[in-house]
Amino acid sequence: MSTPGPGPVRHDGRTPDQLRAVSISRGFARRSDGSALYRCGGTAVLVTANLTEAVPSWLEGREVGWLTAEYMMLPGSTSPRKERRTDSRSTEIQRLIGRSLRASVDTKALGPRTLHVDAEVIDADGGTRTAAITAAFVAVVDAIREKLGPDALRLVLKDSVAAVSVGIVAGQPLLDLDYVEDSGAEVDLNVVRLGRGGLVEVQGTGEGGTFSRSQLTTLLDLAERGLDLLTACQRDALGPDWPF
Amino acid sequence: MSTPGPGPVRHDGRTPDQLRAVSISRGFARRSDGSALYRCGGTAVLVTANLTEAVPSWLEGREVGWLTAEYMMLPGSTSPRKERRTDSRSTEIQRLIGRSLRASVDTKALGPRTLHVDAEVIDADGGTRTAAITAAFVAVVDAIREKLGPDALRLVLKDSVAAVSVGIVAGQPLLDLDYVEDSGAEVDLNVVRLGRGGLVEVQGTGEGGTFSRSQLTTLLDLAERGLDLLTACQRDALGPDWPF
Amino acid sequence: MSTPGPGPVRHDGRTPDQLRAVSISRGFARRSDGSALYRCGGTAVLVTANLTEAVPSWLEGREVGWLTAEYMMLPGSTSPRKERRTDSRSTEIQRLIGRSLRASVDTKALGPRTLHVDAEVIDADGGTRTAAITAAFVAVVDAIREKLGPDALRLVLKDSVAAVSVGIVAGQPLLDLDYVEDSGAEVDLNVVRLGRGGLVEVQGTGEGGTFSRSQLTTLLDLAERGLDLLTACQRDALGPDWPF
Amino acid sequence: MSTPGPGPVRHDGRTPDQLRAVSISRGFARRSDGSALYRCGGTAVLVTANLTEAVPSWLEGREVGWLTAEYMMLPGSTSPRKERRTDSRSTEIQRLIGRSLRASVDTKALGPRTLHVDAEVIDADGGTRTAAITAAFVAVVDAIREKLGPDALRLVLKDSVAAVSVGIVAGQPLLDLDYVEDSGAEVDLNVVRLGRGGLVEVQGTGEGGTFSRSQLTTLLDLAERGLDLLTACQRDALGPDWPF
Amino acid sequence: MSTPGPGPVRHDGRTPDQLRAVSISRGFARRSDGSALYRCGGTAVLVTANLTEAVPSWLEGREVGWLTAEYMMLPGSTSPRKERRTDSRSTEIQRLIGRSLRASVDTKALGPRTLHVDAEVIDADGGTRTAAITAAFVAVVDAIREKLGPDALRLVLKDSVAAVSVGIVAGQPLLDLDYVEDSGAEVDLNVVRLGRGGLVEVQGTGEGGTFSRSQLTTLLDLAERGLDLLTACQRDALGPDWPF
Amino acid sequence: MSTPGPGPVRHDGRTPDQLRAVSISRGFARRSDGSALYRCGGTAVLVTANLTEAVPSWLEGREVGWLTAEYMMLPGSTSPRKERRTDSRSTEIQRLIGRSLRASVDTKALGPRTLHVDAEVIDADGGTRTAAITAAFVAVVDAIREKLGPDALRLVLKDSVAAVSVGIVAGQPLLDLDYVEDSGAEVDLNVVRLGRGGLVEVQGTGEGGTFSRSQLTTLLDLAERGLDLLTACQRDALGPDWPF
Repeated sequence: MSTPGPGPVRHDGRTPDQLRAVSISRGFARRSDGSALYRCGGTAVLVTANLTEAVPSWLEGREVGWLTAEYMMLPGSTSPRKERRTDSRSTEIQRLIGRSLRASVDTKALGPRTLHVDAEVIDADGGTRTAAITAAFVAVVDAIREKLGPDALRLVLKDSVAAVSVGIVAGQPLLDLDYVEDSGAEVDLNVVRLGRGGLVEVQGTGEGGTFSRSQLTTLLDLAERGLDLLTACQRDALGPDWPF
Repeated sequence: MSTPGPGPVRHDGRTPDQLRAVSISRGFARRSDGSALYRCGGTAVLVTANLTEAVPSWLEGREVGWLTAEYMMLPGSTSPRKERRTDSRSTEIQRLIGRSLRASVDTKALGPRTLHVDAEVIDADGGTRTAAITAAFVAVVDAIREKLGPDALRLVLKDSVAAVSVGIVAGQPLLDLDYVEDSGAEVDLNVVRLGRGGLVEVQGTGEGGTFSRSQLTTLLDLAERGLDLLTACQRDALGPDWPF
Repeated sequence: MSTPGPGPVRHDGRTPDQLRAVSISRGFARRSDGSALYRCGGTAVLVTANLTEAVPSWLEGREVGWLTAEYMMLPGSTSPRKERRTDSRSTEIQRLIGRSLRASVDTKALGPRTLHVDAEVIDADGGTRTAAITAAFVAVVDAIREKLGPDALRLVLKDSVAAVSVGIVAGQPLLDLDYVEDSGAEVDLNVVRLGRGGLVEVQGTGEGGTFSRSQLTTLLDLAERGLDLLTACQRDALGPDWPF
Repeated sequence: MSTPGPGPVRHDGRTPDQLRAVSISRGFARRSDGSALYRCGGTAVLVTANLTEAVPSWLEGREVGWLTAEYMMLPGSTSPRKERRTDSRSTEIQRLIGRSLRASVDTKALGPRTLHVDAEVIDADGGTRTAAITAAFVAVVDAIREKLGPDALRLVLKDSVAAVSVGIVAGQPLLDLDYVEDSGAEVDLNVVRLGRGGLVEVQGTGEGGTFSRSQLTTLLDLAERGLDLLTACQRDALGPDWPF
Repeated sequence: MSTPGPGPVRHDGRTPDQLRAVSISRGFARRSDGSALYRCGGTAVLVTANLTEAVPSWLEGREVGWLTAEYMMLPGSTSPRKERRTDSRSTEIQRLIGRSLRASVDTKALGPRTLHVDAEVIDADGGTRTAAITAAFVAVVDAIREKLGPDALRLVLKDSVAAVSVGIVAGQPLLDLDYVEDSGAEVDLNVVRLGRGGLVEVQGTGEGGTFSRSQLTTLLDLAERGLDLLTACQRDALGPDWPF
Repeated sequence: MSTPGPGPVRHDGRTPDQLRAVSISRGFARRSDGSALYRCGGTAVLVTANLTEAVPSWLEGREVGWLTAEYMMLPGSTSPRKERRTDSRSTEIQRLIGRSLRASVDTKALGPRTLHVDAEVIDADGGTRTAAITAAFVAVVDAIREKLGPDALRLVLKDSVAAVSVGIVAGQPLLDLDYVEDSGAEVDLNVVRLGRGGLVEVQGTGEGGTFSRSQLTTLLDLAERGLDLLTACQRDALGPDWPF
């Protein structure tokens, strides 16, 4: 395994430790309480966040809130077209998104309300689940601000949250895999982290292989570097609305 | 019933026979063969079109093609958030979209292929089904061009197709109802027409009332005025790729 | 396009503006509040109507009633046998039936009750959706009379409602298409109208073609002629129970 | 337990060993290969039978045929209206109907074809599953005659089949329970038998109680008496088309 | 038909009137209120019973309890593997299990509670539905004892209940068919009986044949012999917890 | 965070780095190609493995095999009883089981066959997903041996695979959490590893909290210790059938 760093150039010209270009457009879906159109290279995800004054039945009477997520690859997001259905991969991903965002929310301070996060993949070029998480934080900030007012932000949100994928391709650790890289990766690791550094989720998978503890360490270092940058992108997008 | 014309101004400042501002962005979904992000006032619909080299089983061996459509209101397209499911209204609408677009396609010239049209409503502010049809034509042109080449356009497409809604609100015939107007309409009429003028679908419904033959005539006149304008918008969006 | 009138004889011997023979048997399903077995040439539809003292959840507390419809082609109604399922065509049709019947009902006068209309197609030889609407009105009259008494009829029902299909086959406008004619029609138009003449639904479709404004006018004239006759059939079937 | 016989009169005036009045109308559904509208007192069932030139996948290549049945209580067959769905009771019943009819069919002589039996309950006043079986035999005869010719009847059909329910109500064995009797029965027994006497199914259930061997014997005697009469009704209905 | 008795030896060495070896292990599933792992030759069924303080909605407010059953063949219970789904056969069986167990329960004495019986087939070698019933009684005893105390047993349970299958194979009446025998049986009869002798269910089916009244009598005699033995097995398994 | 080691005793008397008692019974389900009843403290999982001579449609013609897994908590495995359904948690888990086992299988050497792994949770007391993986390896060995012979084992299997959960409870890193510990854990980490040490899956989740890189390292050390022991348990259970 090579050391990450400037190293050899990737098929799209990036260095191993380089993110794809990120852009975040707030308010793209105008009727949602909050929304963000997130582009990261060839990947595009629209995330909406909406707050309702109700909780799932199993939380009724407990004065705490909830955040739930759905993730859908739109049929036109892949070539060839993908059938419209919540398959088992989508189920796994929407559980990950929900857990990740809940790590940033103080459900007691939220009160008996539900935040609905909906991630719609418009273009799937790798990293859609981590893009959805990073974008969702921005949409959630706007939804809380819209419905509960700017003063609620620091009460309801404990920290920002972002996610990134890293992997090993042909022995080389790479940050932010695109679809071509992901398809050939030996190891794939998704890391979700709060803005101040607490790890929320670490999901590493040997795809057609296995990985060692030292490879895991290298990948986590690389992921943390990407997460610093993505947190900065979120801060830029939110500008004066950044809650912390 | 008043005569349409300059007349009284509507709640958003439009005259009775005025369309909302239309914008059409081609290629918004980058992995689809063709796509269009269509905005019409507060309504936004993303339509993708993808061509596959297969036909439904009931057409196998018959050397003709097919066009099929799905229509989905994304959960974040309404306030409050809409549950993600294909309800009976969506089923009715996707059948309308499919029939309307097939009127513009020569399925024999298409050959044993299927055009998949997917309409995703991003913002629902009235007129989403007619927006989907008008946008779908642009996406279909790009999908055919992308997959079969520019020369195929005039063979496969018989004419352009566009759609508009008209209605009577407080006794006043109005073009292109938004959500507020639609909710209070006494009569609602959706008209689908080819660019050269042939009617494809006329669907009029008395919503909590009925309508007369003369009201129907007035509404059809108003719709045709709007359809002329929408066909021009499609032509502008396609520019040199306009096939006729 | 030829003018409708005596004209050339159709494959079953009818003139272009002639309905198939209609018969309406009330009370065929003995446990329903109201029912009608409706035959129109080779088409047979059994419609039942039942009144329940409840409303859908979204109407609760609003003191108005509702009418909802289901439409099912029984497996034995076609040759070859049709699989038993609510396909997208059935969904579209049951929405049409529901809207059409609601146009005749004063839901405020009905009070917080639901009228359930169930249309079961026993023999499908064209025109089943319009047959279902025409029959449903008779069943609804009997259900209201049975459950709320004869005096309620004029309060709850605003007018009678009937439906008919017309179309253009080989350039010839025809009233009340049967299956063979419908399969070859260039244009198909379903018209739903109240007994006193208010239009409720106009649904015209170019099947493999388009239609002009003047063709639409000719077809509407033909439909209205048929609707006058069907309203008379309803009045005959109901005899002294005719509410108006 | 009393002995069956003239005995005390039932709530509808019948003696304990008396069937309700039976009528069988052949050909009620005109597009099916065979059909029978069967009325037995207040119970009405429409059974259609259709023959297709195909077999289920698990029989492919084995040169034998199959018979399958569906059973549906139409929503209007009960008061209050029944929701339209195949519940577990319907599943149990359609399996019984299928097994019962297959006992009369020589699936080898049928060849690689499927007989589809569809039983639609129009009025449910007790005994609908046995009515469906008795009616289905008539519909199946007509379907085979229609599709394979009259000479095929004696080859494909081994015997006629009919069914009846018996039960014990207030200690009294009764033939052909109606809904009121069935609701209060201590024991309920459905018996399916071929015309020449072979038993096909015997299904006895203690409803809120149990039964003894001698009660079972009494009920079987009573059922056999009813089955002789029902077989005669089938023979009358089929007249010269009776195959045996 | 031969007389049952010592007679010829069966393919596994049993005499015609011999049960397979039975073993019952209580408490196999440790978190359920009651459970029994039941083995009968090559058949193994795990039955759990759990009591909840609620009733189905249609029993609310009536102060009586309910018992409901589910039956599932685990995918690994057959070779080849069986797909995991509740097919129509399973639906029929779980209704039988529920009715059978309810015959032993005094639902008024149970009070507004539900007993959930879950039968999981681990090895399917014939007779799984009757094994499930016999095992379920043991699990239900333990669930009631666990949740309501030993004194409740005689109040809530009216009698024990057990079930066995008998059949005719190659003209020979046999007790407790295994899979090989069942596959070749001409007649199959399942009998459910209370410990003191009351019959609960008698379900006889001619499989590819029919049966006579005298065959039915012979089979019932054979079944009752088996049921005496199975009731003794239940009594042994429960030891001092036998409630009667 | 304390250092793992002898340390304070847990609620069940274990030291922080102690596994619960493990037992593995091979061949528990007798009709499956391979099976293992796995108990680990209060958790019990029955895993069956069956080999079929077919592959999913998307692998047809590619001469490689597949392994797929299902995971089901039986209704009686929890108190109160769990409804029988594949919820989103189960979907996530069965994907994990499938990926984990595929890491041990050479799908090319397996040839065009599918290994079906079914994990049925009998008692759920924490760690069911990791128990299922560890047990599944044993069942898979037996299934391959049964169907392809003992010589195939070293060809088809690349290595053994086992899984364990670790977590932090009240600041204390613990090995092999039971249900009580898991419910109160701040961090939960599941680790899947091959027998020779390659990591297959690392899934760490902050449950209501976050974790640091050094906590992750401590937990991985603890997990590896448990995995050494579990691999030895698998080796013991397989005895001379251990393939490596």
